[in-house]
Amino acid sequence: MSFTFSLHSTAGSARAGVFVTPHGAVETPAFMPVGTLATVKALDPMDLTAMGASMILSNSYHLHLRPGDELIRELGGLHRFMGWTGPILTDSGGFQVFSLATLCTISEEGVEFQSHIDGSRRFFTPESVMEIGRNLGVDVVMQFDHVIPGQSEEAPARDASERSIRWAARCLTAFAESAEKAEGAERNRQALFPIVQGGIHEGLRREAASALSSMSEWVGFGIGGLSVGEEKPAMYEMLEVVDAVLPANRPRYLMGVGFPEDIVEAIRRGVDLFDCVAPTRMGRNGAAFTIDGRINIKRAEFRNDPRPLDPECTCSACSRFSRAYIRHLFVADEILGLRLLSLHNVHFLLSLARAARQAITAGSLDAWSRDWLTRYHSRNETSR
Amino acid sequence: MSFTFSLHSTAGSARAGVFVTPHGAVETPAFMPVGTLATVKALDPMDLTAMGASMILSNSYHLHLRPGDELIRELGGLHRFMGWTGPILTDSGGFQVFSLATLCTISEEGVEFQSHIDGSRRFFTPESVMEIGRNLGVDVVMQFDHVIPGQSEEAPARDASERSIRWAARCLTAFAESAEKAEGAERNRQALFPIVQGGIHEGLRREAASALSSMSEWVGFGIGGLSVGEEKPAMYEMLEVVDAVLPANRPRYLMGVGFPEDIVEAIRRGVDLFDCVAPTRMGRNGAAFTIDGRINIKRAEFRNDPRPLDPECTCSACSRFSRAYIRHLFVADEILGLRLLSLHNVHFLLSLARAARQAITAGSLDAWSRDWLTRYHSRNETSR
Repeated sequence: MSFTFSLHSTAGSARAGVFVTPHGAVETPAFMPVGTLATVKALDPMDLTAMGASMILSNSYHLHLRPGDELIRELGGLHRFMGWTGPILTDSGGFQVFSLATLCTISEEGVEFQSHIDGSRRFFTPESVMEIGRNLGVDVVMQFDHVIPGQSEEAPARDASERSIRWAARCLTAFAESAEKAEGAERNRQALFPIVQGGIHEGLRREAASALSSMSEWVGFGIGGLSVGEEKPAMYEMLEVVDAVLPANRPRYLMGVGFPEDIVEAIRRGVDLFDCVAPTRMGRNGAAFTIDGRINIKRAEFRNDPRPLDPECTCSACSRFSRAYIRHLFVADEILGLRLLSLHNVHFLLSLARAARQAITAGSLDAWSRDWLTRYHSRNETSR
Repeated sequence: MSFTFSLHSTAGSARAGVFVTPHGAVETPAFMPVGTLATVKALDPMDLTAMGASMILSNSYHLHLRPGDELIRELGGLHRFMGWTGPILTDSGGFQVFSLATLCTISEEGVEFQSHIDGSRRFFTPESVMEIGRNLGVDVVMQFDHVIPGQSEEAPARDASERSIRWAARCLTAFAESAEKAEGAERNRQALFPIVQGGIHEGLRREAASALSSMSEWVGFGIGGLSVGEEKPAMYEMLEVVDAVLPANRPRYLMGVGFPEDIVEAIRRGVDLFDCVAPTRMGRNGAAFTIDGRINIKRAEFRNDPRPLDPECTCSACSRFSRAYIRHLFVADEILGLRLLSLHNVHFLLSLARAARQAITAGSLDAWSRDWLTRYHSRNETSR
């Protein structure tokens, strides 16, 4: 079997494991840097390797529109195209179809929408999205799902969740058929994850997790539709509900999350994999995570500050450059500035997941997470 | 002595040498990547080291305005500020004062101008520019000079050239006084280069080179006011004139040049050091140097081209990525695209200077440069 997941230690619901894929092993919990358009913005694959990133995320919707998944297949698949030899997971495009595209028409068959790039009409179905994943050749393909706003009422949330479950079944069939057509070694090179939806409704989440779990022996599970506008306590509650239902021996990927505090809280609730655009997006805007909370490097107070961004960080920005220098780069609109902050922020989340893993293994997760969150929040307001 | 220059081989006027500075040795001929604002645009000092860059250039005018040379001194000097441990040369700002600033008023004392950043009034004199160089702590400081357009008539060219010679003398005095005040080991950590001006007027160039040569035992010489609008044959002719007058045992730095063909032609005429913003500026605009001429990666023909930018290049872009991928990055406006092209173009010029050095040493410069120029020009038009 090309994919395995083994748990090495647990601490309450938290788990330290290893997720093995055809392109390498991922020690979990892990943060996956986001390379939406086949590049983690402002970074080079070599930077990611140097920072210890093991698995990255890309996006079916975006790559289908630009440069096209068939072109990527022609050029040898996404790994080769973007020069990343480790595992890749692609989000299905569900979230993008419902958030970026316009004139979106949903039917049981699929979703018709207009490209946010050129307005061209497109039609995504569970089957067509599986085909995109196949063309990209990524390790993990997410099912095509129906994503709704985080605070949706129960009726629309139920509608979307149940449709997502039916689409998961169609994805599974299409994925299996396509895998059967693949030759020999290629056959088991990809895995399909279903996505647990259900908004902030406990019953829907429980039903979805249960229905999907009994549908197939999935390699892993996505948890979607969180961190999309709901309150944080509601998100944490949903994670607890899902944690109790999903099989323990499969990795769980919390989609689009998160910020440092969310990662710590979700790890405590049994999540193994994360992705978020925040570290690179914030980095391009001058914001940096630090162990003492977030800072905005453009502030005048950093003009002559000789200290690194984060006093405890070992990234290649913090080990070489002062806040004063990076502030200068931002003031002068120099690309190196946003590159260094992107690099630092991604490193920060990778390190955070590694530190959590170590705490789980050492049996000190409670104390570690309490101390970490206290320090992170303590100076957050004053240093913003 | 902190600075030495030794010639290892010559081939006609061309020279293979080693220029030793307090921050390291530079094998010449060498191309110096340009870090105008204390960063080589889109690149990291680690990239430059990996590419074999030995000496880089920065700019007194720009750093004085932003972030301020006194701030840089306070933070430990330019090397430490920008994380570059090799030698640095700073252009004096003469070119920038006359090209970027507005309401520029020239007197014998100096130049009054308005900052191109905030319109603030500033006054540069030979003495104040030496002070900036001292604050920056760079290895080589260029004199403050009077730069005029490349096609200027003899009268204004003579006026500017003769003023530049008088200013070289004032720079020398100010530089020596400031060096005497420096303590112990710091005293000989910097060198001052005068700049040969004279437009495209043979007599003026000869007079300037002669007057400057007899003024002091300079560590090296700048050749300025070329590649600023004049015809290329005129530039090459001026280089021959200057080559015949300047002492052979000192490095010559041709300021702001150049494009690949200019570098080859100037090396043949006795130039040792080069700098130019072209590789990074072109890189940000999608243009790449290749052994077969320039290409623009945004062209549709590269949409599915699996080949590297340059079939013979060993840079980290060409060894990992296809033209198709880099084109995709440009079409999608991704920062990695302009970073990879900047990296490739700088690597191209560094390699070109190294190849020329090897040809000089091997006694094959004539054949090498003829073949190189023929191939570079042969497909230039068709592949643009």
